[in-house]
Amino acid sequence: MQSQNLLYEGKGKRLYKIDNTDTLLSVFKDDLTAFNAQKKSSEKGKGSLNCQISSQIFKILESKNIKTHFIQTLNDNTMLCKKVQIIPIEVVVRNIATGSLIKRLGIAESLIIKDTPLRQPLVEFYYKDDALGDPIITDSHCLMMNLITSEEIKILKTIALQVNEILQEYFDRAGLNLIDFKLEFGRDKDNTIILADEISPDSCRLWDKVTHKKMDKDIFRQNLGSVTSAYKEVLERLNNL
Amino acid sequence: MQSQNLLYEGKGKRLYKIDNTDTLLSVFKDDLTAFNAQKKSSEKGKGSLNCQISSQIFKILESKNIKTHFIQTLNDNTMLCKKVQIIPIEVVVRNIATGSLIKRLGIAESLIIKDTPLRQPLVEFYYKDDALGDPIITDSHCLMMNLITSEEIKILKTIALQVNEILQEYFDRAGLNLIDFKLEFGRDKDNTIILADEISPDSCRLWDKVTHKKMDKDIFRQNLGSVTSAYKEVLERLNNL
Repeated sequence: MQSQNLLYEGKGKRLYKIDNTDTLLSVFKDDLTAFNAQKKSSEKGKGSLNCQISSQIFKILESKNIKTHFIQTLNDNTMLCKKVQIIPIEVVVRNIATGSLIKRLGIAESLIIKDTPLRQPLVEFYYKDDALGDPIITDSHCLMMNLITSEEIKILKTIALQVNEILQEYFDRAGLNLIDFKLEFGRDKDNTIILADEISPDSCRLWDKVTHKKMDKDIFRQNLGSVTSAYKEVLERLNNL
Repeated sequence: MQSQNLLYEGKGKRLYKIDNTDTLLSVFKDDLTAFNAQKKSSEKGKGSLNCQISSQIFKILESKNIKTHFIQTLNDNTMLCKKVQIIPIEVVVRNIATGSLIKRLGIAESLIIKDTPLRQPLVEFYYKDDALGDPIITDSHCLMMNLITSEEIKILKTIALQVNEILQEYFDRAGLNLIDFKLEFGRDKDNTIILADEISPDSCRLWDKVTHKKMDKDIFRQNLGSVTSAYKEVLERLNNL
């Protein structure tokens, strides 16, 4: 990849433009960051595992009529994607209350979805801004800041809940509980909102269904061992479906 | 007031029960606190001014059919109120973006309400919990934590916007812009949601319409001088209407 083609470098990926096309290359990095990049590390092979897991997930979603930026995997750590204008909102879906949510609200780790029939998975929006620490925002803040329209808020929430249903079922077949995950969306050249970024153990919480062992970035956040050996197991389980 | 009757001591008031009644006494304190009580002080007469301003405001709201816990003022710093079960949500209404909002979202101080005809005053909910620093919450968090029902969320927002309209007009006649304010609600003995707590320069931002001088607790937050002399002027302006 030529450095003059670098469009954007994020914490987990580098994006390279491909001239005269509506596509770009997304190259997955081995870097690990947590707590708004206050904790940093790296594990060789992590980027490649995330690229492959993410590709599998985008393929599943596309097969269920969810539009994504995914075109194809070019090599172990490189994905060809549609170029989009990223909407600066991180959409988080939670099936179980854990992580920052329970610290912020002083509640116990608990099942959000299944304790009463009325309960829904929780959808939250965070304003994507590292310098501000990605603050949580309400629908009204989104409108006030002109991030999206009320119609688009509904679209984001609807797609997020559809993705949740598809991926819960998918991971369940791989013996994994989908605890929560983060999505990012973008507008393509036709201004259609499609799913972008990555969906991987860096952006999802995944617990083994039987042992409740963590198989996601919490391994890094909580110093629980090797990230890549867990991510490799996730990929193998998905490949064996 | 007998100390054995003390029901609750907050940052700005002490509440005393009155046996065999559905009422209580709210005694306004001279204490000043800001930044979740990290900054503390006191100014003699502040409690009395807030009690009188708050009484005036509750009377105006009652006259416009907003139900409040206010019964009558008993003396300079003591209000007789209906006893309510406080809902642990601080409802904030903002006409101008300033204070914690603009810091948290990295936006400029600006008019929320008037820059385009589509804009609405912003209504925010904060979970009333000092130990957690009163974190901002969405409607979904309110439901998840069983704080209120979706029907009650609508009631809170509707009343908050009605109060905003009434008080904007009221303060405008006193030469003051109502920038933002915080409301608390409670359930009375019939389980009706009514306005509670206080509405004063401790809980509102008020700027002089002409000079834009701050006449509220920001004087204390930002070390701009005497709180009581500003609050006294607010009371005098309201008394002269």
